[in-house]
Amino acid sequence: MITLLETTCASIPPADEAAAAAVQRRLDHKTKPRLSLGRLEEVACALAAIQGTDRPRASGKAIVVMAGDHGVAEEGVSAYPQEVTAQMVANFAAGGAAINVLARHAGARVVVVDMGVKAPIPGLAGVRDLSVGPGTRNLARGPAMRIDEVVRALEAGIGVASELADEGVRVIGIGEMGIGNTTAASALTAVFTGLSPAEVTGRGTGIDDATHARKVEVVTRALAVNGPDDADPLGVLAALGGFEIAGLAGVVLGAAARRVAVVMDGFIASAAALSAVRLAPRAAGALLASHRSVEAGHRAVLQALGRRPLLDLDLRLGEGTGAALALHLVEAAVRILDEMATFEAAGVTDAGR
Amino acid sequence: MITLLETTCASIPPADEAAAAAVQRRLDHKTKPRLSLGRLEEVACALAAIQGTDRPRASGKAIVVMAGDHGVAEEGVSAYPQEVTAQMVANFAAGGAAINVLARHAGARVVVVDMGVKAPIPGLAGVRDLSVGPGTRNLARGPAMRIDEVVRALEAGIGVASELADEGVRVIGIGEMGIGNTTAASALTAVFTGLSPAEVTGRGTGIDDATHARKVEVVTRALAVNGPDDADPLGVLAALGGFEIAGLAGVVLGAAARRVAVVMDGFIASAAALSAVRLAPRAAGALLASHRSVEAGHRAVLQALGRRPLLDLDLRLGEGTGAALALHLVEAAVRILDEMATFEAAGVTDAGR
Repeated sequence: MITLLETTCASIPPADEAAAAAVQRRLDHKTKPRLSLGRLEEVACALAAIQGTDRPRASGKAIVVMAGDHGVAEEGVSAYPQEVTAQMVANFAAGGAAINVLARHAGARVVVVDMGVKAPIPGLAGVRDLSVGPGTRNLARGPAMRIDEVVRALEAGIGVASELADEGVRVIGIGEMGIGNTTAASALTAVFTGLSPAEVTGRGTGIDDATHARKVEVVTRALAVNGPDDADPLGVLAALGGFEIAGLAGVVLGAAARRVAVVMDGFIASAAALSAVRLAPRAAGALLASHRSVEAGHRAVLQALGRRPLLDLDLRLGEGTGAALALHLVEAAVRILDEMATFEAAGVTDAGR
Repeated sequence: MITLLETTCASIPPADEAAAAAVQRRLDHKTKPRLSLGRLEEVACALAAIQGTDRPRASGKAIVVMAGDHGVAEEGVSAYPQEVTAQMVANFAAGGAAINVLARHAGARVVVVDMGVKAPIPGLAGVRDLSVGPGTRNLARGPAMRIDEVVRALEAGIGVASELADEGVRVIGIGEMGIGNTTAASALTAVFTGLSPAEVTGRGTGIDDATHARKVEVVTRALAVNGPDDADPLGVLAALGGFEIAGLAGVVLGAAARRVAVVMDGFIASAAALSAVRLAPRAAGALLASHRSVEAGHRAVLQALGRRPLLDLDLRLGEGTGAALALHLVEAAVRILDEMATFEAAGVTDAGR
């Protein structure tokens, strides 16, 4: 049987390099020295390549925040207790979290998805329920998810992206919430980049030295117990990922298939994107990096994806906050393309001709 | 006689460290790990210190773009002919330049000021005329300005900042236009930082190797001819600056005196800010750095000012474009402070207590 996951991966189009080149030509006629808007010009071209048009759009914007719990939290790898996942989802629903504030500021809607939070979520209104289960199993003792579970999570993400594309969203920021999920992201990053657990395991929300040492040990044990094979990305994601991580990987695949740009947030969202790219390499074309977090593994993930972030603000919050801040820059790039005068129209002498 | 310049410099208040500390305490109660919003939290605290309140504001925003011509353009240091200064001022007035687009995107008004453009400006509507003269003299042959001219330019800038403060503007971005003005900025930077002309002289709007070598030679000659004394910042600014550079230095002084924050743009605007700080060291407290441009001297200026930029986007346009992009981040910092829920209000467990 051919699954939604397979058809989606197979339908991702290549980057439209002709559209990108056409956008650069348009930018070269604007009243400014050639390439003087630097990375804004790169973003405009990248968006053209993704959307397949020399008139890219950034006006339809959404942040997808997926939440899930992690069995590995029982190893004591986080500074926060597991119930905070559900509490923060309620905070997202009520509009009081950082991502709500920054998404409002960016003019983006927030789509909150329960991919598998353990505790019952108080105040469900405003939270999309696509839960695959009450948290994953402990990845330090065996696979976090079964293959059917990870496929369900991926396909749920594909569905969310497809719906947003249908509604006219052209740029999706991806963010997450899940106590313990930097441990999962570190394990995935170690497998997909070949780096050691110590090199890709950071401080998460702010743990002390002893907890950090335990976290590195937990990641090391997870790799030993699961024996992940990087030639089998679906198996790796099932063993070491999480419901919200797989869900976001699905969002990346679904968005890429629909020519919707994806702005990655920090370490966990970027590890989800890297998982998607291992499943379908063409999905890389849809990705923009928003910021470089202080997490040790994030740099490795961005390098593996070949993406340079737009912001370097020492963020380490997640939720999609860095992605939301970067949306302003993405939209700025489009507005430059749409609204700036040309040398000819403005009567300005063009030395670059 | 006591001048406006002297009274302004004398009236700049010290940074309000108590307000900054109060803002950090407020941030520490928000539903996020302590300090996890990184540099956004720094900006919120800095704004509190500048504005002297634990309820800082970023809603009143303006970009002041000052234009002036430079006698040194006759040395062939730019890729563009001198008439482009006036043409671009007309483009600003018509709303077609990059700064117009990015200021609109940031919700900031643009105040365009003719500080001393050589050619008559077509379409004067929308351009504030505070011209000190038809361009400066060639700084490679003697002082660019007389002392009375540089004081006039500084006081014009103080006046612009005071008016904006009266109108409720709480954050001013500073940008500039002036063919030849990276040469002036390089000369000022060499004197104020003690670095060599070769270390602080870059490619401006995009010059070739031969032109760059000539530009370094021109800066070297300017220092030899004028013999600037860094203990006399007014004399240095007169000898090596420009009307728009002195005007922006005045804006920094006037803003600092009124507790209005100043977001510096690139190399030239930052060199103007450094000039202001040499005239009145307390003015440093009012400064935020928006971006790190590709200009060689910009890094040196930011280091001398002790400021780390928020953005690193390979911009090299000027006009205030980097400042306009950073305004979104400054406003984001304020909105985080105003709009995020506290742990207590949201019912989220606070592990950091």
